[in-house]
Amino acid sequence: MAEIAAMVERREVGYSLESAFYASEEVYDLDVKAIFGQHWLFVATEAEIPEAGDFVTVEIGTQSLIIVRDDDEEVRALRNVCRHRGSRLLEEPCGAIGNLVCPYHQWTYRADGELVYAESQSPSFDKSKFGLKQVHVRTVGGLIFVCLADEPPADFDEVASVIEPYLKSYRLKEAKVAHQTDLVEEGNWKLVMENNRECHHCDASHPELITSYFPFLRYDESDITPRLQPLYERYLKATEDLDNVCKTNGVPRELVHELDTRETGFMIMRLPLDGDGASFGIDGAQVCQKLIGDSPTPKFGDLSLHMQPNSWFHFLSDHVIVFSVLPIAPDKSMVRTTWLVHPDAVEGEDYTIEGLTSVWKATNDQDRALVEKAQRGVTDPSYVPGPYALVEDDVESFINWYVGRLRDYLEPHRESAERLGHLNAVAAQ
Amino acid sequence: MAEIAAMVERREVGYSLESAFYASEEVYDLDVKAIFGQHWLFVATEAEIPEAGDFVTVEIGTQSLIIVRDDDEEVRALRNVCRHRGSRLLEEPCGAIGNLVCPYHQWTYRADGELVYAESQSPSFDKSKFGLKQVHVRTVGGLIFVCLADEPPADFDEVASVIEPYLKSYRLKEAKVAHQTDLVEEGNWKLVMENNRECHHCDASHPELITSYFPFLRYDESDITPRLQPLYERYLKATEDLDNVCKTNGVPRELVHELDTRETGFMIMRLPLDGDGASFGIDGAQVCQKLIGDSPTPKFGDLSLHMQPNSWFHFLSDHVIVFSVLPIAPDKSMVRTTWLVHPDAVEGEDYTIEGLTSVWKATNDQDRALVEKAQRGVTDPSYVPGPYALVEDDVESFINWYVGRLRDYLEPHRESAERLGHLNAVAAQ
Amino acid sequence: MAEIAAMVERREVGYSLESAFYASEEVYDLDVKAIFGQHWLFVATEAEIPEAGDFVTVEIGTQSLIIVRDDDEEVRALRNVCRHRGSRLLEEPCGAIGNLVCPYHQWTYRADGELVYAESQSPSFDKSKFGLKQVHVRTVGGLIFVCLADEPPADFDEVASVIEPYLKSYRLKEAKVAHQTDLVEEGNWKLVMENNRECHHCDASHPELITSYFPFLRYDESDITPRLQPLYERYLKATEDLDNVCKTNGVPRELVHELDTRETGFMIMRLPLDGDGASFGIDGAQVCQKLIGDSPTPKFGDLSLHMQPNSWFHFLSDHVIVFSVLPIAPDKSMVRTTWLVHPDAVEGEDYTIEGLTSVWKATNDQDRALVEKAQRGVTDPSYVPGPYALVEDDVESFINWYVGRLRDYLEPHRESAERLGHLNAVAAQ
Repeated sequence: MAEIAAMVERREVGYSLESAFYASEEVYDLDVKAIFGQHWLFVATEAEIPEAGDFVTVEIGTQSLIIVRDDDEEVRALRNVCRHRGSRLLEEPCGAIGNLVCPYHQWTYRADGELVYAESQSPSFDKSKFGLKQVHVRTVGGLIFVCLADEPPADFDEVASVIEPYLKSYRLKEAKVAHQTDLVEEGNWKLVMENNRECHHCDASHPELITSYFPFLRYDESDITPRLQPLYERYLKATEDLDNVCKTNGVPRELVHELDTRETGFMIMRLPLDGDGASFGIDGAQVCQKLIGDSPTPKFGDLSLHMQPNSWFHFLSDHVIVFSVLPIAPDKSMVRTTWLVHPDAVEGEDYTIEGLTSVWKATNDQDRALVEKAQRGVTDPSYVPGPYALVEDDVESFINWYVGRLRDYLEPHRESAERLGHLNAVAAQ
Repeated sequence: MAEIAAMVERREVGYSLESAFYASEEVYDLDVKAIFGQHWLFVATEAEIPEAGDFVTVEIGTQSLIIVRDDDEEVRALRNVCRHRGSRLLEEPCGAIGNLVCPYHQWTYRADGELVYAESQSPSFDKSKFGLKQVHVRTVGGLIFVCLADEPPADFDEVASVIEPYLKSYRLKEAKVAHQTDLVEEGNWKLVMENNRECHHCDASHPELITSYFPFLRYDESDITPRLQPLYERYLKATEDLDNVCKTNGVPRELVHELDTRETGFMIMRLPLDGDGASFGIDGAQVCQKLIGDSPTPKFGDLSLHMQPNSWFHFLSDHVIVFSVLPIAPDKSMVRTTWLVHPDAVEGEDYTIEGLTSVWKATNDQDRALVEKAQRGVTDPSYVPGPYALVEDDVESFINWYVGRLRDYLEPHRESAERLGHLNAVAAQ
Repeated sequence: MAEIAAMVERREVGYSLESAFYASEEVYDLDVKAIFGQHWLFVATEAEIPEAGDFVTVEIGTQSLIIVRDDDEEVRALRNVCRHRGSRLLEEPCGAIGNLVCPYHQWTYRADGELVYAESQSPSFDKSKFGLKQVHVRTVGGLIFVCLADEPPADFDEVASVIEPYLKSYRLKEAKVAHQTDLVEEGNWKLVMENNRECHHCDASHPELITSYFPFLRYDESDITPRLQPLYERYLKATEDLDNVCKTNGVPRELVHELDTRETGFMIMRLPLDGDGASFGIDGAQVCQKLIGDSPTPKFGDLSLHMQPNSWFHFLSDHVIVFSVLPIAPDKSMVRTTWLVHPDAVEGEDYTIEGLTSVWKATNDQDRALVEKAQRGVTDPSYVPGPYALVEDDVESFINWYVGRLRDYLEPHRESAERLGHLNAVAAQ
């Protein structure tokens, strides 16, 4: 722990993290505790559990959660561990239950976690003390967040009040899940996040995705060469159109960048798209003929939300795509991607799975390959941190947030850590 | 070690063990040393090695043993490690040898372990000092037990003298091995044992097995509802018949329950079976037409023997089935199951492999699934020990025995452990 | 570290190493640092990268190197880690490049490692500080050696000057790579080396290989029985013929045995072959019709070179075969074998892959099986070191060299190690 605290202290701003952050079991265990165990995590959408008894299971390291809609239609997050002898209750990724019945000795819990039946216990046994353990859960605009800590970060309400107006028109709670994929990547979860937090790699690696985007995110006028001029004018026009659509429909348009300035770090922004300007089809083409929620027009831009530590979202006029990253091991992570459409959109008529998902399936897989090359490289003993490019400032923000959160978590332990550090220094090889 | 000692001390009676007992490498290593390294372990039957030179190999963690009948027809247990440069000698699970010849440089040992040939050694080389290492071995009623300790538990003779009269009539030493399976389960060896030590899970999980058993093992008269009355009367009748068979044939009938009251913990009992009352076929049907040993009648009940730390046995009128659990890793174990029949029983005539083995193959596989769910649950950081049901008292006995044996093993190390604990407490995060 | 130092100190001469040397992660990590990180390692032949831009990649534990011929035709060894965010640059085992372009964000390096392009860096960014890290590289007679240490062993020039005259006539730099295999063995790299350093196992395990060799390597006249007499005379004749060939052609003939007497330990010797006396075909048959380099006659013997820590070589009149061992994990190693022939030798005419490679493919696989049996045996807790045979003196030399190199590496750490040892002794279980 003293060693990790030292690593945190010597981290150089503007440079990538040192190797042990991506390789060591100790850092991984700390990440699971201090990052995934203390912050709000996006884990599912309400649309995945529309009715009472519907559930999904979520694995965070070796922890398993049941996200379930209880009999009062409330969303619950329950530990997937029987209170009798500890068996896993549910192993399916999703499904529907009446009660939760343990497969081992049939201890039976209601969907809200209350224990209602346990056979052959002593007369003094108090069922009320053996309900399933509850985890904090919150929903915002149809997105379900959980927090494993006893005392979750207090700023979530504030963040929710900022982002809710942006998400509202998409009516995600009523949406239909069109598709979901789980992609395992042989890389540390932070490499997956860093990859998501910059598009510096997009030109060379994501030929499908970049056909929708204008390349001007961090440009200013002086960067525009004569060759780029026509494209730049298209961009200015698309920006202006998007401004007008937002103004007309009373939809917020401002970029909010709080990636490393609060516990529940996030960024939200709306970008115009190129070509058809509608969605993630090739050249910005629409991929579902039925618009989602109250989208006023196909040219509604890409509303993107990035949240620390583990999620990002794209809200298009015709569909929504949500991503969560879950750690499996120091060198293994899972990316769950879910595509949502209007509840009345009909597969084969309004959209096809192929048309809806192909660009991001390709993009995810391209990113997986990059993350895996990075994992092999940063765990090579000859690796040293390198300098971020200017366009990698949101990677820097992610790392700033991460390092800051670790520092806060380690603070109470600092004194004893220093003492251990001293002992080690005395004895070390 | 200090941490494990603390875990042992804080173990709450009536509750399952805490998570680290099933997950940590340190506990696993200690289990291999303190439990598997210090106690008598059932590893094979004499029927598997009927003739001089016959052998089986047994793996206990990373240790390998050769159980072999030597030229004097004595059963030997030898370390499967050449005394030259350490190569494994035998890798086959079973077979027959003349001498034991190392595949690497042909050091040659007699079946009793004595070194008889080693090429190109210096003139001063003393062959008599390089025999294969011997392990303590004992046989009881055809069952082979080994002990890896220098000084095995002294109570084995006493236990042997109690159980031998029960086993005698089955004449297991002369039996024929009809079938053997090795099942790898993704769970700690103690979860496999706990699963074996209760039938609380049987009703829901073992539809085939329960057709043979009466469900009254821990019932008293007051538990018998009117609906259960006819079944209960059948049970009383079967019990009385079994009493008479035992009395007529001079066969011991008493339950001996010493699961947690001695080093070589065990329990032996004879239960009547339901339906045909004979064996583990559906509804208690006989599965081999030729009775085994001197069984006086097909309705000879189920003589069951449970031994700590790693075995259980069912002796039926028509066959015997023996089980041993061997640790592979903290989260992986092997269950070896062997079916034995009368030496003259003919496959295809007196029995079929399918008919003989299907119930316990199904039962083993159902138990494997339960053990694996339990492993995933108890290694979830949110798991806390839960209360055993009244009918799980033999699980409690197993855990009592286990914790007591660890405590005895750790005793000599306590003082230094406390000192280390102190150092850690000073330095810890 | 203190524990390893203690193991090094208590190593008994004439006996195999104790178990932890083959099993522990700590020793493995030390081996990678102190042995593979401090010594000259054979990694490839110049023939594998004949032209500018040609490269091979080499993995040493988790380290990856690019061995590349730069634009000035110099051989370079570069760390395969981008200086930006650490991505692996090349994942192919071999190929050809113009520049080295990182697949992640296209940082672009020349083949000599210099950074020539990095997009979107701040104005103060100094490209000259971010070239790929260089590793020491030397070539001798067409063999490429690298050293990962800052200060490589200084005796390499001396060794090179001894072996170069032996290798010269084979003109390996101009040779053609006919075939290459990578064999993964489930054993510690030292077991692979020990296996290579004796032929005590050859008679029983390598039926193909031994048809080429005379069995008299360590015999003297008194060992020759009447039955062996005709074979021995054939051996004396072949030896005399080989002496004459060497004398006539001005080729050095002396055995140089410095396996454990210097940092860059090696042995070189030329042996006559039996049967046809030419090469590794069955009964010494030639396997390539075109002789390699300036071989004066097919009966040019087997020039064998053994180098610490990880390579051996056989130079025949008609082909050369080179071997390197690379560690993957404590219990896993890779053996790369490369067959080289005259640049004008034509596959299908002068040689076939099958004819050229079958003996050593079989031999390698036989050795893999032995190494894997040894790994399982020496990691059995009942294993204790055993005595080497007289004919295993080069195994002893390898171990002497290894233990000596560890001792030298650990020397500066000894005092602190002793202090840690003291702390541990106070606290230990």
